[in-house]
Amino acid sequence: MEQDTISAISTPIGEGAIAIVRLSGDEAFSIANRIFSGKDLEDVDSHTIHYGSLKDPKTNEKVEEVMVSVMRAPKTFTREDIIEINCHGGMVSVNRVLQLVLREGARLAEPGEFTKRAFLNGRIDLSQAEAVMDLIRSKTDRAMSVALKQMDGRLSHLIRTLRQELIETVAHVEVNIDYPEYDDVEEMTNTMLVEKASYVQKEIKKILQTAKQGKILREGIATAIIGRPNVGKSSLLNVLAHENKAIVTEIPGTTRDVIEEYVNVRGVPLRLIDTAGIRETEDIVEKIGVERSRQALQDADLILLVLNGSEEWTKEDEALFEAAKDLDVIVLINKTDLEQKIDMEAVKKAAGDFPIITTSLLEEQGIDRLEESIAETFFEGEIDSGDLTYVSNVRHIQLLEQAEKSLDDALEGIELDMPLDLVQIDITRTWELLGEIIGDNVNESLIDQLFSQFCLGK
Amino acid sequence: MEQDTISAISTPIGEGAIAIVRLSGDEAFSIANRIFSGKDLEDVDSHTIHYGSLKDPKTNEKVEEVMVSVMRAPKTFTREDIIEINCHGGMVSVNRVLQLVLREGARLAEPGEFTKRAFLNGRIDLSQAEAVMDLIRSKTDRAMSVALKQMDGRLSHLIRTLRQELIETVAHVEVNIDYPEYDDVEEMTNTMLVEKASYVQKEIKKILQTAKQGKILREGIATAIIGRPNVGKSSLLNVLAHENKAIVTEIPGTTRDVIEEYVNVRGVPLRLIDTAGIRETEDIVEKIGVERSRQALQDADLILLVLNGSEEWTKEDEALFEAAKDLDVIVLINKTDLEQKIDMEAVKKAAGDFPIITTSLLEEQGIDRLEESIAETFFEGEIDSGDLTYVSNVRHIQLLEQAEKSLDDALEGIELDMPLDLVQIDITRTWELLGEIIGDNVNESLIDQLFSQFCLGK
Repeated sequence: MEQDTISAISTPIGEGAIAIVRLSGDEAFSIANRIFSGKDLEDVDSHTIHYGSLKDPKTNEKVEEVMVSVMRAPKTFTREDIIEINCHGGMVSVNRVLQLVLREGARLAEPGEFTKRAFLNGRIDLSQAEAVMDLIRSKTDRAMSVALKQMDGRLSHLIRTLRQELIETVAHVEVNIDYPEYDDVEEMTNTMLVEKASYVQKEIKKILQTAKQGKILREGIATAIIGRPNVGKSSLLNVLAHENKAIVTEIPGTTRDVIEEYVNVRGVPLRLIDTAGIRETEDIVEKIGVERSRQALQDADLILLVLNGSEEWTKEDEALFEAAKDLDVIVLINKTDLEQKIDMEAVKKAAGDFPIITTSLLEEQGIDRLEESIAETFFEGEIDSGDLTYVSNVRHIQLLEQAEKSLDDALEGIELDMPLDLVQIDITRTWELLGEIIGDNVNESLIDQLFSQFCLGK
Repeated sequence: MEQDTISAISTPIGEGAIAIVRLSGDEAFSIANRIFSGKDLEDVDSHTIHYGSLKDPKTNEKVEEVMVSVMRAPKTFTREDIIEINCHGGMVSVNRVLQLVLREGARLAEPGEFTKRAFLNGRIDLSQAEAVMDLIRSKTDRAMSVALKQMDGRLSHLIRTLRQELIETVAHVEVNIDYPEYDDVEEMTNTMLVEKASYVQKEIKKILQTAKQGKILREGIATAIIGRPNVGKSSLLNVLAHENKAIVTEIPGTTRDVIEEYVNVRGVPLRLIDTAGIRETEDIVEKIGVERSRQALQDADLILLVLNGSEEWTKEDEALFEAAKDLDVIVLINKTDLEQKIDMEAVKKAAGDFPIITTSLLEEQGIDRLEESIAETFFEGEIDSGDLTYVSNVRHIQLLEQAEKSLDDALEGIELDMPLDLVQIDITRTWELLGEIIGDNVNESLIDQLFSQFCLGK
C-alpha cells in the first residue's frame, strides 16, 4: 500500500450547507495534522470526529472552521487512511480547503480514484465498483435497488459460482486428457461436459434476460410522443410530467450541459427524447417523410402514438404507423370525452399487436391504463420482482453474451466429437470472460478507462 | 430544549460521491437507530462514525450503505443531538434516505433552521449566524475571510464593547437624574456624555467606512462595459474572464435560475451586469439616448468606458461620458498597437478625475494597470489589510447608520442643553440598535425572515 495520498471534493459542486474534501493514503493524517489546529489527529481513535479550524501553515491565517473525520486503515472505503474534512458548502470555501491540502502534499484525485483504490486494494471487485457509480447515477428507486444489490456483491457471487463450475469441469477434462486410456471415462466426460456447459449457459441466459430491463432502469426508456397536430401530444407530456415526479438531469461532459427530462412512471424512468425534434415537431412524418421519420424514431425504445378519436382516421395516421412499425408502440386514442368518429377497424388493423388505450387527457381519463401498459411492455408483469439480480451494465452484458457464445462453441465441439483439449479452450475462455466482469483477468487500461467515467471525489 | 427533530439534505443537490442527510433534535438518535443496522447508535460515544446500512423498518429492505456520524448535545453545531448520515451522492439515494428519516418522525427542516437553533440555543449570536450564510455565498477568498472573521465573533465583540460603553454611560446618567442636586456633577456628566457618545460614534463611523468594501466583497462590483461599436468591449470581457478565474453562480429563487458571471480581479469580484442589455448593446447611448442610458448605468458600481485610440474622438464618445458622469468610471484607451489618432486633450477633459488607462487588449497590454486601477478604486490601496473587520451585511449597515444618527441626536441634545432624560433616550436607543445586530432585542418575525434566506440543510 505504498500509494501517494489523493484528495478531491466529494460533494456536488454548488452552494450547500456542507461540503466534504476527502483524503486517502499514507500521508492523509500527517497532511491533515499540519493544517488542523485543535488536536493531534495522528493520536486520536479511528472513526472519530473533531471540531477545529484549518490554518494556513505559511501565513498562520485561519482558513476555515471544520469538522474532521479520521478513519484509520484498513477499515475504510479505500482500505487506506482516510480523512474527511467537512467545511462550509460554498464554492470558495471548499476550493480553499482543497488547495491547502494539495499544497501540503496531496495529489488531486482522478475521477473514480477512491473507488479504484478500493478495488485495487481488494475491498470490492470490479462489478461492485461499477455499481457504486450506477447507484449515484440512478434515476429511480428501482434502478437504485439494482445497483445496491450489485454493490452488495450479488452479481459477483453468481459469477463466482458459475466460474467455479467451469473450473471444476476444466480440471476434470485435464485428467481425461492425461489418462485417455479408458474409453468409458471419455464418454462419461462428454456427458458431464454437456451437462455442466448447458447448466452454466442456461444461468447466463437467465441473467441476460434481465439485462434489457436493467438497461432501461439505468438509462431510462427513450420515449417519443408522435401524432398529428392537435391530437393531444403536449397534454400527454404534461399529464405524464404532472402525475409523476419529473426529474431533470444535467449530463456533464459537454461545455454547455445537456438537460434531459425524466418522468418516473411506476418506477420506470421515461426519458422524453427530442431527437430530430420528434417531440416538438407537430407533423414529423409530413415534414421529413416516412423513411426519415423511421430513422429518427429508431433511437426510441418506446413510441406513444396519439390519435384523435373525435376525428376521422386519416392517411397521416396511417403514415405514422408505417414509420413506427417494428418498434415498441403504444397507441392512444385520445379525446374520448368528445363524440367518437375514428374508424376503430382501421386503427386495430394498423395497430396489429400494439396495445390500444383510450384516453381523455383533458379529463385525465385512461392514464392509469397507459401507465400499466408502459410497465407491462418493459417488465412483462414482473414489476415487483425486487429479488431479480438485474444486469444493467453494458460491459457486463457484452461479456455475458460472449461467454454464452463461447459455451455454444464448446457444446458444438462436443457434438462434433472434437478433441477434448479444443473444447477445453472454449470452456477456459468462458471462465476468463466471466472473470472480466468481476475484475479478474482485466488489463490496466480497461481499469483506467472504467474509473475515468466516475465522478470526481468518488 | 424540548424541540422537535428536524432533518434536511445538507450537501448541494447534484451527482457527487457523497451526500449528507442531517438530523438535529431530541429524537435524532432514536430515529437513526430505528433505520440503522449494525450497531446501537444510542450506545456509542459522541463524535464517532459508524459504517452500516439503512433498512426500511416496514419492508426490512436495505435502502442504502452509509456512514453515520453521531454527535451528542451540547457540543454540536445546534447544541442538540445531531446525526449525520453520509450516503451516496445521487439524487435518488439521498432522497430515499431523507424520506425514510421523515417517515420515522423527523420534520423537514426549514431553510436555515439548523443555524437558527444554534442561535436560539445560544451557541452563536445573530451576526455570527448571518456570517455562516455569507461564508457559503462568498465569491472570493477575501469575502470569505470577512465572513469567517464575523463568524468568529469579531464584529460581535466590537459591538458588545460599544454597547458596554453606552450602558455604563446610561447608568451614570441615571445616577445624575436621581441625584440632580449637585450642579458640577451635571456638568461632569455632560462632558462625560459628549466624550463617550463621540467615541462610540467615531467607532461606528470606522466600521461603516469598511461597509462599502464589505458589500462589494459580498455582492461583487456590478460592472458595465460601455463603448462605441468595435472599440474592444468583447475583447475586454474575454481578457478579464480569461486572465482571471470566471465563476458562474446560479441564483436560486426564480423558476428558471438566473446565471451571473463573476470575474475575480485580485480578490475583488466583478459582477458583469447585463441590465437593459448594457453589456451586449453595441451602442447603448445611440439606442436609448443619454438620459435613459444614465438610468440604466445607475445599477453599476463601476463603468469601464472603452475608447478606440486609433480613431478620432467622436460625439458618441462624448455622449458616453455624459451618460456615465457622477459614477465610478475607469477610461480605457484601447488599440495602442495601432497608430493613435484620438485627441488626448478631449479625452482628458471629458474624463476629469477618472483614471485613464491605455491598453492593447489584442496584445494583452495594460491589463495589469487596469486591474490595479479597479482595486484602487474600491479599496484605496488597502487591499492587503486583512485585519479590517468589514461589515458586509445590509441589515448591519442600516442599524449602524441608525445608531450613528441616534448618537448625533444625543450630541445635539447635549449641546442644546436638553434635559438629561431626553438625551438618555437617544443613548438607550443606540444601545438597542446595536443590540439588534447581534440579536438582542430582535423580534421573532425578523429572525424568521432572516433565516428563511438561508439555504436548505444549514
